[in-house]
This record gives sequence, C-alpha cells and structure tokens, in this order.
Amino acid sequence: MKLYYAPGTCALACWIALKWAKADFEVQKADYASAEFKKVNPLAQVPALDIGGKRAMTQADAIFGYIVEKHPEANLGADDNILGRFEYAETMSFLTGDFHPAYWPFFGPQRYTVDHSETALDNVRKASFARIDRVMTYLDELIGDSEHVYRNRRTVADAYAFIMSRWSVRTPKSWKEYPNIARLFASMEKDADVQAVLRESAA
Amino acid sequence: MKLYYAPGTCALACWIALKWAKADFEVQKADYASAEFKKVNPLAQVPALDIGGKRAMTQADAIFGYIVEKHPEANLGADDNILGRFEYAETMSFLTGDFHPAYWPFFGPQRYTVDHSETALDNVRKASFARIDRVMTYLDELIGDSEHVYRNRRTVADAYAFIMSRWSVRTPKSWKEYPNIARLFASMEKDADVQAVLRESAA
Repeated sequence: MKLYYAPGTCALACWIALKWAKADFEVQKADYASAEFKKVNPLAQVPALDIGGKRAMTQADAIFGYIVEKHPEANLGADDNILGRFEYAETMSFLTGDFHPAYWPFFGPQRYTVDHSETALDNVRKASFARIDRVMTYLDELIGDSEHVYRNRRTVADAYAFIMSRWSVRTPKSWKEYPNIARLFASMEKDADVQAVLRESAA
Repeated sequence: MKLYYAPGTCALACWIALKWAKADFEVQKADYASAEFKKVNPLAQVPALDIGGKRAMTQADAIFGYIVEKHPEANLGADDNILGRFEYAETMSFLTGDFHPAYWPFFGPQRYTVDHSETALDNVRKASFARIDRVMTYLDELIGDSEHVYRNRRTVADAYAFIMSRWSVRTPKSWKEYPNIARLFASMEKDADVQAVLRESAA
C-alpha cells in the first residue's frame, strides 16, 4: 500500500503509525496538481492511503483505524473493552473534530472572511490563537502527568497529537509552554521511527 | 444512562440513535450554567452521555460508537469487515472533522475575527457559506442515488448528517437544493423516532 503525504501535515502521523506497526508500505509526496493524484483522491487532500481499491482511502482517523486493525500485535489502538473504546474514540474525535479545525483559520484565514485585506486576514489569524490555546490546553490535560495521550501507553493518538501540535511553533504560544505536551514531545523526539519520518518527509 | 442535549444540536442525533437502538435511557436538557451540568461535563458541551462513570462521556462520534456496540442487534454501525469499518470511519470522520466545523463560523463568527464590528462578523458569515456548500455537496455525493449516508442502509451516520444538515435552512442555500440530501430528509421525516425527537426536543 502507498501513503500519500505532504510535508508537515497530519499525514506524517499516519506515516509514523505505519512504521510503528511495522507495516509493508511505501510513501509518495502528493503532487496536488498532478493528474495522478487527482485520480488517487479527487478531493486532492492528504493523507490518502492507496490499498489497491477503486479509490484511495482518506481521513487520518480512518487510516489510523485501518492500521490499528491490520496490525493488532503493535497494540496502537484502544484497549479491548467497551469503555476503553469509548474513551479512545472520544480522544480521536477531539483530535479530528476540535484540535485540527482550530488551526484552519491560522493556516487559511482567507477562507474565514470575504474581506481579503491584510488587516482583515490578520484579525482572523489573531482570533485563531485563542481557539488554538483552548485545544492545546485540553490536550495538555488529556496527557496529564503521563507521556501519552491515551491511557499512558503509546497509541496512534500520540503520533496524531504530536504532528499537529508542532504547528504551534508558528503561533505566539508554542508547545513548549504546555508542560505535559512538552513531555510527550521529549519522548516522541527520542523515537527512531519519528526521527526517520521527520527527516524523510522534509527531504 | 442519561443523554444531555440542547435543542437543534447534534446531541439530537445521539437521541435518535438511542431510540433506533431501543436503548434504555433518559434525556435532560443541559443547563450550561448550572452547577449540576458543570459536574457532568466540565467543558459545558453537549452531547454528554452519563453512563454512571466518574464523568460523562462526550463527543458525538464516540457516543455513537458506544450505542452501536451496546446494541449490535440494531445494526446501526459499520459492516463487520475491515473495509466496511474503514469506509464507515471515513464517513464519520468527515462528518465530525469537516462537516460540523464548516458551520462554526456561521454560528459563532466572533470566534473567527478579533474585529467584532457588524461588518467584520458579516464578512465571516458570508465566507462560511462557501465552506458549508463544499461539505453539503460532498455529503450529497456520499448519499448518491440512495436514501442513506453509508452503504444504502440505516446507520447512525444518517441521524448525524440529518440533524446537522438542518442547520442549512438558516443559510442562503438550504438542504432542499441538494437532491440526494433532500431524499435522505424525506425518508428521515417519515421516521416515527425522528419525529418524536424533533417534537420532544423542541418542547
């Protein structure tokens, strides 16, 4: 199977998860404008995972689920009981539905106002900082005094939260100012698979 | 168990799912300001599902997962195979991570610019219409020529998509202008459980 990615995006979290799972995969940098990639994913978004079907699968959360299920021995998903799954789904839903969208106005302010003057766009960016701080603070509480996002063990949620929290270095309040997120980072940055993905995706 | 809701919110979709599943449950309108509800959910958000644990469970997507797993006989979730689960997760992730957030700037423009003049807020609302149309169009394609969101059978995704698409009546382009969504609506509005939730939640 082939993972399409773009540098810096949450597709890198899927890449880390594939490495942790010791999956057999290749990666390809997405060329959004190319005819090939439009065939892979008509929405022209990453991550996209080509598993040989009629179309590539999309949505980071769904790709994580697939990796987790294909590689149960890696134990990268929920604890195997209904409350474990509930809490895991709650965490992943927070990351997909609250955390990720909090950054959109920062990266694409022109989608949040029809006034595209520099002042108006800057006012959108400035407003995004409060929303970003809100989700970073919630993530910091989720991690608590552990080194992980879910139940103090390594899961795909760590990769997902790590890759997206890196975006904060471009805002006034970086992840370094959230003590528990900073602890997750220290642990992730020591991980050889994480190091390899950061290096290879930037190449 | 007890579902906390607010009228018009996606908590109503959880309520419909509980009825479809023939679950044993009660509902309570959330009084966000009350000490009781802050104890239930410190984030003061709905839906919240109190299942008797230390804290209520949150996130619509996670609550759906819990209802689906507790009531397998209702068959309201994914087909029981890895591709079925992948496609289901992809759909739910789209609804949670793309569809729902597309409406936020419309409902809360003051969170998307630090300029709170009427003109600036109106410019945010206007920009939201393109983002809302984008996700409504994608949902319309997901439904295709069927009456359902996922694989042409009733799942919680129908309730989730239906309740959120109703918000479009307050925008310039209502769900009536999306033919496949309109077909889903025709089917949902005939459903006695859906009718009951809409009636009881508005009371």
